[in-house]
Amino acid sequence: MNAFGRVFRVHIFGESHGTSVGITIDGCPAGLPLAADDFTTDIERRKGGKQKGTTPRQEEDKPLFYSGVFNGKTTGAPLTILFENNNTRSGDYEKGRAIPRPGHADFVAHQKYGGFEDFRGGGHFSGRLTLCLVAAGVVAKKLLPAVGISATILEIGGEQDLEKGLQKAIDQKDSIGGIVQCVATGIPLGLGEPFFDSAESLLSHAVFAIPAVKGIEFGAGFAAARMFGADHNDAIQDATGRTVTNHAGGVVGGITNGNDLVFRIAIKPTSSTPKDQTSLNWETGQVETFSIKGRHDLCIALRVPPVLEAVTAVVLADLMLLDGHLPKVHNGDR
Amino acid sequence: MNAFGRVFRVHIFGESHGTSVGITIDGCPAGLPLAADDFTTDIERRKGGKQKGTTPRQEEDKPLFYSGVFNGKTTGAPLTILFENNNTRSGDYEKGRAIPRPGHADFVAHQKYGGFEDFRGGGHFSGRLTLCLVAAGVVAKKLLPAVGISATILEIGGEQDLEKGLQKAIDQKDSIGGIVQCVATGIPLGLGEPFFDSAESLLSHAVFAIPAVKGIEFGAGFAAARMFGADHNDAIQDATGRTVTNHAGGVVGGITNGNDLVFRIAIKPTSSTPKDQTSLNWETGQVETFSIKGRHDLCIALRVPPVLEAVTAVVLADLMLLDGHLPKVHNGDR
Amino acid sequence: MNAFGRVFRVHIFGESHGTSVGITIDGCPAGLPLAADDFTTDIERRKGGKQKGTTPRQEEDKPLFYSGVFNGKTTGAPLTILFENNNTRSGDYEKGRAIPRPGHADFVAHQKYGGFEDFRGGGHFSGRLTLCLVAAGVVAKKLLPAVGISATILEIGGEQDLEKGLQKAIDQKDSIGGIVQCVATGIPLGLGEPFFDSAESLLSHAVFAIPAVKGIEFGAGFAAARMFGADHNDAIQDATGRTVTNHAGGVVGGITNGNDLVFRIAIKPTSSTPKDQTSLNWETGQVETFSIKGRHDLCIALRVPPVLEAVTAVVLADLMLLDGHLPKVHNGDR
Amino acid sequence: MNAFGRVFRVHIFGESHGTSVGITIDGCPAGLPLAADDFTTDIERRKGGKQKGTTPRQEEDKPLFYSGVFNGKTTGAPLTILFENNNTRSGDYEKGRAIPRPGHADFVAHQKYGGFEDFRGGGHFSGRLTLCLVAAGVVAKKLLPAVGISATILEIGGEQDLEKGLQKAIDQKDSIGGIVQCVATGIPLGLGEPFFDSAESLLSHAVFAIPAVKGIEFGAGFAAARMFGADHNDAIQDATGRTVTNHAGGVVGGITNGNDLVFRIAIKPTSSTPKDQTSLNWETGQVETFSIKGRHDLCIALRVPPVLEAVTAVVLADLMLLDGHLPKVHNGDR
Repeated sequence: MNAFGRVFRVHIFGESHGTSVGITIDGCPAGLPLAADDFTTDIERRKGGKQKGTTPRQEEDKPLFYSGVFNGKTTGAPLTILFENNNTRSGDYEKGRAIPRPGHADFVAHQKYGGFEDFRGGGHFSGRLTLCLVAAGVVAKKLLPAVGISATILEIGGEQDLEKGLQKAIDQKDSIGGIVQCVATGIPLGLGEPFFDSAESLLSHAVFAIPAVKGIEFGAGFAAARMFGADHNDAIQDATGRTVTNHAGGVVGGITNGNDLVFRIAIKPTSSTPKDQTSLNWETGQVETFSIKGRHDLCIALRVPPVLEAVTAVVLADLMLLDGHLPKVHNGDR
Repeated sequence: MNAFGRVFRVHIFGESHGTSVGITIDGCPAGLPLAADDFTTDIERRKGGKQKGTTPRQEEDKPLFYSGVFNGKTTGAPLTILFENNNTRSGDYEKGRAIPRPGHADFVAHQKYGGFEDFRGGGHFSGRLTLCLVAAGVVAKKLLPAVGISATILEIGGEQDLEKGLQKAIDQKDSIGGIVQCVATGIPLGLGEPFFDSAESLLSHAVFAIPAVKGIEFGAGFAAARMFGADHNDAIQDATGRTVTNHAGGVVGGITNGNDLVFRIAIKPTSSTPKDQTSLNWETGQVETFSIKGRHDLCIALRVPPVLEAVTAVVLADLMLLDGHLPKVHNGDR
Repeated sequence: MNAFGRVFRVHIFGESHGTSVGITIDGCPAGLPLAADDFTTDIERRKGGKQKGTTPRQEEDKPLFYSGVFNGKTTGAPLTILFENNNTRSGDYEKGRAIPRPGHADFVAHQKYGGFEDFRGGGHFSGRLTLCLVAAGVVAKKLLPAVGISATILEIGGEQDLEKGLQKAIDQKDSIGGIVQCVATGIPLGLGEPFFDSAESLLSHAVFAIPAVKGIEFGAGFAAARMFGADHNDAIQDATGRTVTNHAGGVVGGITNGNDLVFRIAIKPTSSTPKDQTSLNWETGQVETFSIKGRHDLCIALRVPPVLEAVTAVVLADLMLLDGHLPKVHNGDR
Repeated sequence: MNAFGRVFRVHIFGESHGTSVGITIDGCPAGLPLAADDFTTDIERRKGGKQKGTTPRQEEDKPLFYSGVFNGKTTGAPLTILFENNNTRSGDYEKGRAIPRPGHADFVAHQKYGGFEDFRGGGHFSGRLTLCLVAAGVVAKKLLPAVGISATILEIGGEQDLEKGLQKAIDQKDSIGGIVQCVATGIPLGLGEPFFDSAESLLSHAVFAIPAVKGIEFGAGFAAARMFGADHNDAIQDATGRTVTNHAGGVVGGITNGNDLVFRIAIKPTSSTPKDQTSLNWETGQVETFSIKGRHDLCIALRVPPVLEAVTAVVLADLMLLDGHLPKVHNGDR
């Protein structure tokens, strides 16, 4: 299913080179003020072409409200937002179709969908769909005024000096990976369930919907595997549940404990590297050397922060609505 | 919800010191032979008390079929399996209740459930519930004869010599964490969806249902964040989709690519460390030093492999039933 | 799936002649007082053997709490309740297995489950499973102290004098059908959604889970099809939404309107009639005349009211929890 | 939720007087040929203005494929289809807003959504959304070439001579109800589950998504409540499960039995009657007499058949995909 959430449910659809990409959100409370301007900041943050290492492809990315908004506020009915695809150059992609690009979904999509998939620019698998995630996040964030969600890049290519990491890739004429951290503050204690619907289960479920994510860790994460218990345990210091340390990353027993939610994700290097690669040519049946042309990000991690914030906001909005932390009808006012 | 799966759906219930813990599986194909003996190996693997670093608490852990099995085969109706709790010493736990144990769910459970939670031995949050996961995994594995799933401990306390890692904890009189890897072979290409129901989303969702998991990474995982694209990309070498390397861990674009599924998880040190700790005393309102008595694992990672295999099998059974890789009625025979 | 509900989710399992039948309820708020005595009234109402026209089979039907109850109150963890099957006479059923009984699930179950179904006494298809529905309803009703739910038999065999209708069946030595009406008072305005999750959609979904139901109608129901609009429309008389008439049965546009919820269901005659019948004999391949022995209800509609109330309560509890009308943690007091 | 289906999942969105109404279908197999022309017949059947008793409002109702179709075939990605709203006259509706129209969702929508609902022409509650259902049905029907689904009007105003029934309403200057029957042939045996996901549960769930439906009955339906068991039972006559009679309407024990699926629904009279009515005026707080202007159907049942076929097809497609009766990838060809 291309949808997520139990009561605040986000559906995404569209293809990179179709007419548009979009979302429908079911379960958004009525009365939330929503205007195109609300989306500008996060959409701009997600865009490439603004910095070293991102694609020069430019889209206007203006949200078009197709349903669920009336007089500038949500109505409680399904909220549909579309983004037109104006800046497509399908010709770039079609000629290389015989060779499924390593790291991309070309091969699996072809097999899974019997060759009927829209292969232009990655089709439905395109990173362009993360625009939809960002849009859903804008709505979710507006529902959560008391929650702060902030994602930042920690490393590129293993360097905490991001410029240096990026320069390594430029020098190498290759793409490169990175690590992004997300911190959310103001989270109520008690979100999530033990076992299958733990806060970590739901967050990781949503986070792995972001293309190129290959790992997630909460709090101390993988470092916890090397720690002693007395060092890892977070001592509770008062009746609000505040802990001295936050090795748990804000989740204990699957349930948020009222401390900051902290997690990090690993982003693989952009699959479309400028370097020569080898792959099977379906037409010739031979493994061939080829190179990928077109506009691509050297380091896709650069564009991930607003997307990561967005899926985090979507999960939190769902859990907070489910637990009665948010009104079913918004007051209609900021 | 204490349930997972779209067509092969596993529900867990029970408490550590109640009468029993159990599962109901909905959507298990009819005709699958199922006997108590099928569960022995994985249940024994999960048990503590067999090796250095695990709790001496011993349970018989005999599966009792309450519904869905007739004449030794599944019927297609909901399959309910219970495990009695015989070996409970509630007295161990009640006296310390005023102090919520750091790293445990005591505090969050108390707040979320208004103090009505069954706190004896961790109640529904107890690691004993992982017996239910193991049982579900036994059923799932039997549905997947062509799939091999194997989890192994890679590190304890950062040491790849596991005995050495364990000895560190014993010397330190503390608990310790570890890393467990899961490899699944024989996975059909095409499982999972782009975005929200990616194979990685579903697997991580299920994996974070295992208590003490704090991170997951697929293939190269966090190391991918430090790699160049040309190094990370897995070159496709033939029409089956086999790749030269497997940095992707068997999942590309959210979809299994026919190569081995490979992922690792980080297990935090057992929260019940023998060391003195501090935490809030609810009754006195003071932060106090206390120590945890009772029977506990020094390194819970030791008991994780069969649990990790189990949740992996559950996810794969669900996806393979969904995609028509498994018959709706089993042939009733091995 | 053998489950229903979005946030108050009821799972049923078990077979007529297995060890037991039961339910697991996920999402029941913590703190609800729950004792075996709470179940007595509705379980007794459901039982046969008390009146003309019901089976003499007697079960003790004592609820056994297997999980989710601690110190007499729900804990917020999954609530599992079992009922043992003590009074089974499997011999009655096995000999007739070659002939699938008309009106029963014998034939479809055999085909769907490849012959692996538990056929004893109808197995998982047995009316005994309605005991599980009643139990779920007891829990749901306790969550809804301000809602009154009452089901009554309107007709048996077309007679509004129920004794007379029943006597017709006794005289005819045949089973007979009936009509049951359910009225629920104290329903908040606003439950349900337009279209797919309309209150009528959810109620009918749950109601058709009751064996032998062949129709449902809300308010004027089928009679509305013969009415003029001006006669059918319910005029709103005040700001609470109270209407002069209630032809809508309390639901407009899929949403409860604050008036009483009123609907009726049609119950077919008990499939196990004492009369001779014909059906295919699987073994001989011939259509044969046979008769059903054993203990059966002449009019199953007699036992439906508490079951109908129960599924109604389950739907209402789910919708009211979803819309924030009920606390996530009960006050723990009667 | 404004969505239905487990593996073939239909979402609807839009408002009567917004830019458009539409659907997204998730889980539609790849390779299904789909062109605007495929929709013409059912969309024309649904349209008003063609016959006595339907509204003269005319919409072009051309399906616009926004995602999931490539080179004339479905891709396996979410399939989004929009229909523009060209022919809106909002002015008709706004002036009467102070008086919630009896039988309409005006009052409940206002209360549920806090006054933020799009009230123009019924907004999201409008019968115009049934166009979306019809479109989903077109896709579902194309997946089911071996299934025949046909809905016909049985009665209008209690008259089986439909012209006569309609004339009654015209003479009375009032709207009128009707009864519609749906018959589906070629249904495989075994669809549906016992209890909560019975075929009747799922069908009725979907059917009550159609505005104005107030009842549903399968096979003999309410008449079964007046029958004896020996008369009602359908004798099985051969190994395919074919029965002599079909009082069950093709569903026994919640599961399709291989015979025709037969059910009927009751449609209330159009709420927008030309007659004078009374209702509360929110502004004055008084009950007032008023009349509804604008373009409306005298008998909405006339437009129901293609909608009823559509939701039936949606349920059947979902169940048949779930049970492996349909390929995951269509052959791409008729």
